[in-house]
Amino acid sequence: MKEELIRKVQLTDKEMPTAWYNIQADLKDLPPYLNPQTLKPVTAEELAPIFPPEIIKQEMSKERYIDIPDEVQDIYHTYRPSNLHRAYGLERMLGTPAKIFYKYEGNNATGSHKLNSAVPQAYYNKAAGIKRLTTETGAGQWGSALSMACCHFGLECQVYMVKVSYNQKPMRRTFMQTFGAGVAASPSNLTQFGRDYLAQNPDSNGNLGIAISEAVEDAVSRSDTNYALGSVLNHVAMHQTIIGLETQKQFEKIDMYPDIVIACAGGGSNFSGIAFPFVRDKLQGKADTRIIAAESAACPSLTKGVYAYDYSDVGHMCPITKMYTLGANFMPSGVHAGGLRYHGMNPIVSKLYHDGVIEAAAYSQLDTLKAGMAFAQAEGIIPAPESTHAIKCAMDEALKAKEEGVSKTIVFCLSGNGYFDMYAYEALLAGSLKDSNAPEIDKNKISLPKIAGLQE
Amino acid sequence: MKEELIRKVQLTDKEMPTAWYNIQADLKDLPPYLNPQTLKPVTAEELAPIFPPEIIKQEMSKERYIDIPDEVQDIYHTYRPSNLHRAYGLERMLGTPAKIFYKYEGNNATGSHKLNSAVPQAYYNKAAGIKRLTTETGAGQWGSALSMACCHFGLECQVYMVKVSYNQKPMRRTFMQTFGAGVAASPSNLTQFGRDYLAQNPDSNGNLGIAISEAVEDAVSRSDTNYALGSVLNHVAMHQTIIGLETQKQFEKIDMYPDIVIACAGGGSNFSGIAFPFVRDKLQGKADTRIIAAESAACPSLTKGVYAYDYSDVGHMCPITKMYTLGANFMPSGVHAGGLRYHGMNPIVSKLYHDGVIEAAAYSQLDTLKAGMAFAQAEGIIPAPESTHAIKCAMDEALKAKEEGVSKTIVFCLSGNGYFDMYAYEALLAGSLKDSNAPEIDKNKISLPKIAGLQE
Repeated sequence: MKEELIRKVQLTDKEMPTAWYNIQADLKDLPPYLNPQTLKPVTAEELAPIFPPEIIKQEMSKERYIDIPDEVQDIYHTYRPSNLHRAYGLERMLGTPAKIFYKYEGNNATGSHKLNSAVPQAYYNKAAGIKRLTTETGAGQWGSALSMACCHFGLECQVYMVKVSYNQKPMRRTFMQTFGAGVAASPSNLTQFGRDYLAQNPDSNGNLGIAISEAVEDAVSRSDTNYALGSVLNHVAMHQTIIGLETQKQFEKIDMYPDIVIACAGGGSNFSGIAFPFVRDKLQGKADTRIIAAESAACPSLTKGVYAYDYSDVGHMCPITKMYTLGANFMPSGVHAGGLRYHGMNPIVSKLYHDGVIEAAAYSQLDTLKAGMAFAQAEGIIPAPESTHAIKCAMDEALKAKEEGVSKTIVFCLSGNGYFDMYAYEALLAGSLKDSNAPEIDKNKISLPKIAGLQE
Repeated sequence: MKEELIRKVQLTDKEMPTAWYNIQADLKDLPPYLNPQTLKPVTAEELAPIFPPEIIKQEMSKERYIDIPDEVQDIYHTYRPSNLHRAYGLERMLGTPAKIFYKYEGNNATGSHKLNSAVPQAYYNKAAGIKRLTTETGAGQWGSALSMACCHFGLECQVYMVKVSYNQKPMRRTFMQTFGAGVAASPSNLTQFGRDYLAQNPDSNGNLGIAISEAVEDAVSRSDTNYALGSVLNHVAMHQTIIGLETQKQFEKIDMYPDIVIACAGGGSNFSGIAFPFVRDKLQGKADTRIIAAESAACPSLTKGVYAYDYSDVGHMCPITKMYTLGANFMPSGVHAGGLRYHGMNPIVSKLYHDGVIEAAAYSQLDTLKAGMAFAQAEGIIPAPESTHAIKCAMDEALKAKEEGVSKTIVFCLSGNGYFDMYAYEALLAGSLKDSNAPEIDKNKISLPKIAGLQE
């Protein structure tokens, strides 16, 4: 029988999952967050100045499935379910027997998966009577998503955008402003932390850790204002599991199950999103899937960092978290994959890596953007620089399958498109793209908070 | 019974139409194209130096439906069928009883409907043994689409990009180059016409009519090279009917039929695409749909032009066409909707307007971009400046329905997204956006070719 050419696997609106998967229900011994002042486990009360009750509950919940509110599903339905595509073009280009699929999260106006968490965060804050949200953004994808979500629910939005991105990517700034958001270059004069930092470092280009501190200070200082984070935390990862849950339904429809699941990982949000439902199956012994986090060689927290309690932000305002980290003061080089430039990693992803449940690999800027261009030519979608790390990893695995002469089924999350990142491709085409060599990292020299009895 | 909230109407891959609709089968007395040298009707042989046989056949065909080749359907399936969305957010914002739908053609990597014709044009040329295609592009959407289609079929692609766009939109240029295309600023030194024009007008910013002449000269001068056009001609309009055919299937699914069908119109390709299947029903007496072409007040060929035989390009290399025109030397102001800056209009659209089957309305740049921003905030998609003309028209009709207290069903084609046009929104936000006042047009002073016995 002739195999039917399955270009993409669609889901109908009615097939969209109506609950997120909370992996905390299936994991034991998750290290608690610590209060950066008291060094004791963070309580719900301590998070209340910046998060609404439902988000705090989700952050600490042990319930396996948490219903997606109707109002959130309603917005999800404007762009979800997203399609699972078979990458025939890429397979042909590589001459591989592997079957390569990608889950495409770039088909919404913000161009990335970030909207999946921005919508529920805006919704829960609105429901709690909050009028205004603050956040940080690096490459601009998260800021764009939160701006749109706030606009929908009638919330004000203040984005602290890392200064180097603010200057390099004026169109991302305009994008957020189109949805009514305020956008400030961070470090800014809007916060005490920003003013102090600028006094010490007047020429600073900023980084995510600084922008987070500014956004948190802003949120703490106003009772009508909360803070929203686009990655790293458990509730964000959980919101993103809609990606993996849909992917599993789509594979069921074609009676397949992937051998390898791949996503890029910066703070860990899109990786968690596609991976956690497959981790669940793996932990239950249902499948022996290889699950790989593809990170930037310029900021290799999993592959070159240490697993330890560390600060989440430069201003030490956020909880201390046990995670793979390069140190809160680590300053990555200015790679185009701005979303992969965070010094730490989602604590659950970190634990899964520490426990050997998942794998990680780091890729350089030149290799990944070349992979991105090959993917564009083969599949017709120009990927975001972040997503090219997943593509590079998938291509390598597909070539390994070719060498070994086995037909693996590979799926990766194409977390976003590169419409706002064309300057990266411009540099590649012009031959002027700088490669991102892995920084020399001496694990013993990573600066960590001193916490008696807790640090190894 | 509670009305089910239909956010979007999807079609499965199997429901995608497998034939285009050729409106020439249902129209009589279409004026022939004329050879610009002989002033006699153009023959198939005369088109052979620039088009492959199947395209020439389609351009002149009277068959009602023309099968979409499997190879073309295969690429269509990577991004089609496109969704029909219900604009609940916009309806709420306007407080209108009208039901507003939009067919979204921006969900493919080129960001617009142009791919619908680029794919078959590249395919038919490849099938005819052609190695290389030339074309012109204004805003860059058509050039992007043809670059991608050529890349897929292994054809070289040379794009003549209007110089003002080439300089204003470097990212569009990079986009095309990512797919392997060559991109030249037009007028260029690559053609005799370009060199001559530059000698006379060294500071010229170019326009579409010049770029067309360059692309045609390039194609004529090489036997391995053909030319591809992104709008105006009949075969292009026909390829785009996949939009309207899908839209009709989607309305059938929800047991509705639109009262008003709207699209922006520059050369007429997306307008034809959504409108022609509805025109068919109207001509057959099945429906009394209002069908409206929304054009730019800066280039109002339908509403302020004359219906006459005119040149298609500045170099007078292309057929003389009976159409609504502002004169081949008309130089529109530099509005952001670069795709609406062509002096003429698809000849069938022109005839339908002349015969009173369809309507037209012109909108200014400021009004349309404001409508675009309102739409973005209501619906979460930032539209291309061209598409904002359709949005403005739909909003006006929805407000009229509100005044009249009637519930009309309105559908418009959202032909593309505005990812590469953020600078237009930036200008709007900054308050520096110039409005496009309608130029003073004296119909008697439009310069037309003198053709004995044919011009009125």
